[in-house]
Amino acid sequence: MSIKVGVVGAAGFAGIEVVRNLIGHPEFELIAATSNELAGKRIEEVYPNFVGCTDLAFTAHEDAPLDSCDVVFLAVPHTAALAQAPTLMKSGASVVDLSADFRLKDPAVYEQWYQVEHTATDLLAKAAFGLPELFRSDLEALAQRRSQGEPVLVGCAGCYPTATSLAAAPAIRAGLLGDGPVVADAVSGVSGAGKKATERTHYCFADENLEAYGVGTHRHTPEIEQILGIEGRLVFTPHLAPLDRGLLSTVTLPLGDSAITQSQLDELYQSFYANDAFVSVLVGGKQPKTSSVAGTNRAHVAAVYNAHANVIVATGAIDNVGKGAAGQAVQCANIICGLPETTGLVSIAIPA
Amino acid sequence: MSIKVGVVGAAGFAGIEVVRNLIGHPEFELIAATSNELAGKRIEEVYPNFVGCTDLAFTAHEDAPLDSCDVVFLAVPHTAALAQAPTLMKSGASVVDLSADFRLKDPAVYEQWYQVEHTATDLLAKAAFGLPELFRSDLEALAQRRSQGEPVLVGCAGCYPTATSLAAAPAIRAGLLGDGPVVADAVSGVSGAGKKATERTHYCFADENLEAYGVGTHRHTPEIEQILGIEGRLVFTPHLAPLDRGLLSTVTLPLGDSAITQSQLDELYQSFYANDAFVSVLVGGKQPKTSSVAGTNRAHVAAVYNAHANVIVATGAIDNVGKGAAGQAVQCANIICGLPETTGLVSIAIPA
Amino acid sequence: MSIKVGVVGAAGFAGIEVVRNLIGHPEFELIAATSNELAGKRIEEVYPNFVGCTDLAFTAHEDAPLDSCDVVFLAVPHTAALAQAPTLMKSGASVVDLSADFRLKDPAVYEQWYQVEHTATDLLAKAAFGLPELFRSDLEALAQRRSQGEPVLVGCAGCYPTATSLAAAPAIRAGLLGDGPVVADAVSGVSGAGKKATERTHYCFADENLEAYGVGTHRHTPEIEQILGIEGRLVFTPHLAPLDRGLLSTVTLPLGDSAITQSQLDELYQSFYANDAFVSVLVGGKQPKTSSVAGTNRAHVAAVYNAHANVIVATGAIDNVGKGAAGQAVQCANIICGLPETTGLVSIAIPA
Amino acid sequence: MSIKVGVVGAAGFAGIEVVRNLIGHPEFELIAATSNELAGKRIEEVYPNFVGCTDLAFTAHEDAPLDSCDVVFLAVPHTAALAQAPTLMKSGASVVDLSADFRLKDPAVYEQWYQVEHTATDLLAKAAFGLPELFRSDLEALAQRRSQGEPVLVGCAGCYPTATSLAAAPAIRAGLLGDGPVVADAVSGVSGAGKKATERTHYCFADENLEAYGVGTHRHTPEIEQILGIEGRLVFTPHLAPLDRGLLSTVTLPLGDSAITQSQLDELYQSFYANDAFVSVLVGGKQPKTSSVAGTNRAHVAAVYNAHANVIVATGAIDNVGKGAAGQAVQCANIICGLPETTGLVSIAIPA
Repeated sequence: MSIKVGVVGAAGFAGIEVVRNLIGHPEFELIAATSNELAGKRIEEVYPNFVGCTDLAFTAHEDAPLDSCDVVFLAVPHTAALAQAPTLMKSGASVVDLSADFRLKDPAVYEQWYQVEHTATDLLAKAAFGLPELFRSDLEALAQRRSQGEPVLVGCAGCYPTATSLAAAPAIRAGLLGDGPVVADAVSGVSGAGKKATERTHYCFADENLEAYGVGTHRHTPEIEQILGIEGRLVFTPHLAPLDRGLLSTVTLPLGDSAITQSQLDELYQSFYANDAFVSVLVGGKQPKTSSVAGTNRAHVAAVYNAHANVIVATGAIDNVGKGAAGQAVQCANIICGLPETTGLVSIAIPA
Repeated sequence: MSIKVGVVGAAGFAGIEVVRNLIGHPEFELIAATSNELAGKRIEEVYPNFVGCTDLAFTAHEDAPLDSCDVVFLAVPHTAALAQAPTLMKSGASVVDLSADFRLKDPAVYEQWYQVEHTATDLLAKAAFGLPELFRSDLEALAQRRSQGEPVLVGCAGCYPTATSLAAAPAIRAGLLGDGPVVADAVSGVSGAGKKATERTHYCFADENLEAYGVGTHRHTPEIEQILGIEGRLVFTPHLAPLDRGLLSTVTLPLGDSAITQSQLDELYQSFYANDAFVSVLVGGKQPKTSSVAGTNRAHVAAVYNAHANVIVATGAIDNVGKGAAGQAVQCANIICGLPETTGLVSIAIPA
Repeated sequence: MSIKVGVVGAAGFAGIEVVRNLIGHPEFELIAATSNELAGKRIEEVYPNFVGCTDLAFTAHEDAPLDSCDVVFLAVPHTAALAQAPTLMKSGASVVDLSADFRLKDPAVYEQWYQVEHTATDLLAKAAFGLPELFRSDLEALAQRRSQGEPVLVGCAGCYPTATSLAAAPAIRAGLLGDGPVVADAVSGVSGAGKKATERTHYCFADENLEAYGVGTHRHTPEIEQILGIEGRLVFTPHLAPLDRGLLSTVTLPLGDSAITQSQLDELYQSFYANDAFVSVLVGGKQPKTSSVAGTNRAHVAAVYNAHANVIVATGAIDNVGKGAAGQAVQCANIICGLPETTGLVSIAIPA
Repeated sequence: MSIKVGVVGAAGFAGIEVVRNLIGHPEFELIAATSNELAGKRIEEVYPNFVGCTDLAFTAHEDAPLDSCDVVFLAVPHTAALAQAPTLMKSGASVVDLSADFRLKDPAVYEQWYQVEHTATDLLAKAAFGLPELFRSDLEALAQRRSQGEPVLVGCAGCYPTATSLAAAPAIRAGLLGDGPVVADAVSGVSGAGKKATERTHYCFADENLEAYGVGTHRHTPEIEQILGIEGRLVFTPHLAPLDRGLLSTVTLPLGDSAITQSQLDELYQSFYANDAFVSVLVGGKQPKTSSVAGTNRAHVAAVYNAHANVIVATGAIDNVGKGAAGQAVQCANIICGLPETTGLVSIAIPA
């Protein structure tokens, strides 16, 4: 018997990619895709890649059969999830939230960076962080609770935190990090700026351009620090580059006294991700390419020991809308529903 | 029991996309991917999108277990298929050829445009043309013969012929075409120029550039004329644009005396492709977008009646490496093996 | 003594490129750049390519010293020029209009295609069409009148008409055109869609995509027909491709009875443009590339005789915002001011 | 009287951009552009952006009138400049070298990173480093010597060192740098990989892709360390992104004990570059965009004080082939010839 699912905010880039992942998912049945703005329009009218692939139409939030859903994906702006999650969970649905509302464990940190009150701290306390490779047991615990009839909540990791943390976590969890700032310079494709037409997303301004943005102020900073346990030490600088899908994070980790060789580092990383279907470690000098994972839920990581300055330079490539948002959400949904986490997520990127 | 398949010339853009389509195909088992140049290298070393997806390595042609294959895909330059198909078929394999060697029914036309002798005219006579939506019964006849133990041969349509013919065929087969030249101006992404690194495929020369090429001399001209039955009337001008995957053909068809309305034209096209899973007709003023079909075996077509000059402007969008090559080859293979033609080919393009 | 000039609608893509051409122009002094929306903002704040290049700020239309201008460039939507040109000319300024308001000689044709009344038919009757290579003597006649104190008006050619007409005019004016439709399939970069942020100009929708638009309905149709004298015979289909600047038009001209060889055609074209600094004819099989003219006022054209279908395929490449708009406007302004037409317009495109 | 100049290695991306800068330069007369590979071909045949702009042809090195040149630009691979500079200077020419051969002051460092002997250490000792904004007096000293008849030598800064150093130098020279690694993550367009057609420069591999390369091993590391005086402390990671021209370097500088505010930092940077025509400091939260300087010799920089981790994040945007190579070389040539350094270099980037 299929598991009924709905997507709230289905018309945005993350939401519609959840829809794409759900069409053809062998266990989930998509019964609602909401968009107040586009209510009544067939999905294929708005996104013509779906022509011939689905008859589903967007529905207004209030008209959607969300209370018949077993799982609801929230692909909404922050604060909207704060408002919607409690209602959905009361109706019995588990919630996989792609917004920032249930990521930061400390409401005070949320309130500091997002400048808004956290109005669902009780749910936050019981939510799991949705980055399975680093917090799988928390998600499995939710699966256990859900199997006993309790609606559960996942706050999925953001795109920059996913790539940055997958790149840095093996070294940091192994205790290799010394003193000083951790520098994460990350570059994202334009889809990261969202579907809204703005000067930033205008082709003629984004094309043939590179720029940093949100320098020192990007809200993914505390999220990365929380994941990696490096509070107050992260210098995170996001950049925009002229491509659609793709995110590369380059993390420079100052080493402590521990000596390490490149081959030990390779082994450490390979061992760390040995059981993760979606994360591959590149060794032998190969570097992750975002094109290798575009359109998928995969991540490629590498770590290079740099003796010159006694640091590790770790890199992680993902599709910001895939593993950085929609793919990860479906992966988390798979886990909390007791399914193999790869269910419906096995696509391979275009070769070149 | 799975059907054993091999890919000859698996390292090129068309070959590797056949490989991508075959990994995960539920009925075909890929047992050989040849590349004399890259023999011994694991596929994932050469194309890192396959990291974690396959352990297969390229093999030299002579070392590949091609005689154990039920079906062999030839993704080789023209003339190479002439040399290889007879041997493969003698060993019992059916052949799906992506090259130009078995497309043109008249060897004299082949020899005129390709400036080389056709050395397998007996096979050519028995081959079917691989464009299922327009010649499905020929392919089904091959399925019948193959089911009786006879190795069969498909000469798959080229990329420009596929998009151009899918756009123009419904109008032409309905007898709407009047006198005068048929003009097909088509634009392709750079992958159409192949994997070889040249000035044409150099990023800095292809980026931010549009140009026509092969004006009046492109070898797809006689192929399109054969498909559409418009010998000597086609003006085909291909162009290059700065994208990876995608091909759009715009065909201007002079009308005869028959009167037609836009709604009749829409109905004609919708009816023509009513039973084709991979071809969708856009109506209501919508125009095909190559991004809607990138990475897939789908085609989008539209036809506009232009009273101002009494012509039809028909447009067709495909992924030149997908429906224009590898996807189509797998679709043909499905048919000659008696499988549903959509088997393993149901992916949906990235929304935006 | 410098010639004082102003730009109305300076914040759009065409207007700001006029500004770029005027800064550093040795004879024109830019004293006003209007934008009601951005009034008060320094140009460099809005377009950071001007940082350190000009201190000029946008002014509101009503605050701009337009009545002190010798020449005013109108880079405004159609109908706005209808409203503004009379006032400006009464104040003594000559007007170079980049909009469509003064291009079509027959007001009835204007009203048919633009669905609005032409309210300045007296000015229209005296205006010259701004495409110097094909109508230079008309512009020189304006220069004569202006030198005698009469404000004059130029209606500059549109982007598609410029590329299409430069490609086709030599053959048509030589009487080579036979019967039947003339097909112009043209491809433009996204800057042609303007500065406004829309789904069409969103990076993620334009990137990796090709599509036709305005099929059978584009308003440049009658303009091209007027320039080439082929009323009712043009099939014009514009397309969008993923680049910023660049426009390529491919024109298929059915031949009449006149015999022609490729070398005669090359000579015809070279002779036609022998005295035009901005138009270069490519021969020997070379095809125009938009990247060769990006950022400049140049045009590259070629013509290929196709014996197969007895047609000429003529191609023309321009920068749609350069020779297709702003560069051409400055070239026209140079002419009506009695300056060498190349003044301030000699830049060379980036090599690759 | 014009100054005669030649370009050795004129067919590569840096060389041909020097040629573009020299055509139309009011003081330099280009009399030789060498390319052994393309000798005899007219420049416009190879780079069609020059059609109609120059009649010059490439000449073989040995046939070029280099001994008639006052200044020779060497746009050759490293070691080739070592071989050629001595001969040219003996013939009386001053040399502006774009290669790496005369950048590193300590031959041992050169030999360590380039794995080849430095065979012209006497010239190296007398050469100036070609980054005028940071070492202008050294170049002016060369101008003085040259004016007395002595051939002089400039070793121009590399592309990454230029952007990185312009961004970081004001803070470092002001003594703000504390302990710990300096992290420079820089992203370059594909033109930085050179004209050679390779898999790296293939459109289909570079398009829609981000990747790091040369992690820990890039040869610009010691050059940046030398410029900034931070030997052994730099972690430099270059990246490739899908654009033609453009380079952005993001430098994270750990602060020492000195307190600083954002406004003090802005003032420090503005004051530092107050007299530099080509470097603009962005303040008020604006970040440098490579599109703002593409095709020019300009640089945009900004510095952000990050109290969270007590660092400065400084960013610098240039055109890697412009200010990062050819433009800078012409700027240096201007200075050593006693010309205003902006001569012939005042172009403005395309607005969008």
